[in-house]
Amino acid sequence: MKKVLAKVIVTPKPVVNDPQGLTVKQGLITLGFREVEDVRVGKYIEVSLEAENVPEARERVEAMCRQLLANHVIEDFHFEIDHEDRQRR
Amino acid sequence: MKKVLAKVIVTPKPVVNDPQGLTVKQGLITLGFREVEDVRVGKYIEVSLEAENVPEARERVEAMCRQLLANHVIEDFHFEIDHEDRQRR
Repeated sequence: MKKVLAKVIVTPKPVVNDPQGLTVKQGLITLGFREVEDVRVGKYIEVSLEAENVPEARERVEAMCRQLLANHVIEDFHFEIDHEDRQRR
Repeated sequence: MKKVLAKVIVTPKPVVNDPQGLTVKQGLITLGFREVEDVRVGKYIEVSLEAENVPEARERVEAMCRQLLANHVIEDFHFEIDHEDRQRR
């Protein structure tokens, strides 16, 4: 088993309203960043896990996203798998 | 002026408690993902903006992070700048 780090990004689907993004956009404009046209706010989730290999890790993390990390009705997700061995050993 | 897309990731600093991450970890383990060792939850923010060039965009987004997007006491941030021209034109 090796340790891997999954970096998951969950974003609101393009058709879904994003009130948090609108609030951040207004805040940035108020601070003088008038060049800002749009802001979307999502989640970034790092999951450290053990897996036999990268394809297995990929399958497990995909299942985690579908079951818990993302709400597939209103959110999209994507992720990448990094090796963590060199950091932890 | 060209349109660029900044992809900002804000994470809790390693020394900071992350109760949201602990809750997600427990949820994953309860669902049967026993291989999960640690979860950290941060924010993912996409900012569409206009800039003369990439170095200027980089400087402006860095200022946005320092002033609003990240709390530097408890959070780290990093970002990348993508060209958005081909998507929008």
